[in-house]
Amino acid sequence: MTEKGSAPAARAVLQQCLQARLQVKPAEDHAEAQFVQIDRGTVIYICFFKGATDDILPKMASTLLNLRLCESDSGKMVSVLELPGSLLIVPQATLGGKAKGRAMQYHNNVGKEDGLRLYSAFVSLCEKELTAVSAEVTVKHGTYGNRQVLKLDTNGPYTHVMEF
Amino acid sequence: MTEKGSAPAARAVLQQCLQARLQVKPAEDHAEAQFVQIDRGTVIYICFFKGATDDILPKMASTLLNLRLCESDSGKMVSVLELPGSLLIVPQATLGGKAKGRAMQYHNNVGKEDGLRLYSAFVSLCEKELTAVSAEVTVKHGTYGNRQVLKLDTNGPYTHVMEF
Repeated sequence: MTEKGSAPAARAVLQQCLQARLQVKPAEDHAEAQFVQIDRGTVIYICFFKGATDDILPKMASTLLNLRLCESDSGKMVSVLELPGSLLIVPQATLGGKAKGRAMQYHNNVGKEDGLRLYSAFVSLCEKELTAVSAEVTVKHGTYGNRQVLKLDTNGPYTHVMEF
Repeated sequence: MTEKGSAPAARAVLQQCLQARLQVKPAEDHAEAQFVQIDRGTVIYICFFKGATDDILPKMASTLLNLRLCESDSGKMVSVLELPGSLLIVPQATLGGKAKGRAMQYHNNVGKEDGLRLYSAFVSLCEKELTAVSAEVTVKHGTYGNRQVLKLDTNGPYTHVMEF
């Protein structure tokens, strides 16, 4: 979590997975739902707050991809780049929620247009970093603004919260 | 998240599920691994920090179980008690992680003995609240200190972070 005392610009939750599948297009009348899937790697749930700018994205991507959060076959903790593992990036506006009474409010979340731009740029940065490392791993991501229908299989999610 | 400025005593991550399965006993030589499972409801990942006391537990349990984080069949947001949905409570010490360079440190986490006591008491409180509401729902929980091998199926995890 951020130590700065100032309000964070972004919040991420990370979970390790053996396999994860995410809906990117809901079913329609004559079309089945579409999904993306990764095997071993990391699921990054991400939410941007008001005031977030593109400046924070390189540090965010670099930090999240280089933190030693993955267990290698030998039991050593390594980064998702070192594993190498795949990434599933899930837009998750609910991470910006604050309780007011029994309801959750999302007043600090970035607006839709900025959010989509930041999210897309973050995905691109992660793709660049990961594909530079290995051709066997992949970056998949959800559709911004959609319901994130997710199926997750883990050997321990090892859930972490990071703020930027 | 906590607004108080003081360090939190506990952190929880909540995800909604259609079904969730958690290992509670790893496989051994002559025994298969044991699992618990819930259907529709909420997965609560929980971590206690140094200085956490039993005093905070009733408010924590009451807040988490009464927040309107679940989508009813009619699309209305209701609490897990109102749904009613089941609970899977996962001890998740990794939630206390702070990055130092590329490594995560967990220096603020409560000690093992206190952690187990707080975790068990929190589970009991949740059981009490939920079983008072409906006999059709259930509280399942992981084994403190074990690897939390988890399988999650969602219609949107709707991930929230709460601090106490």
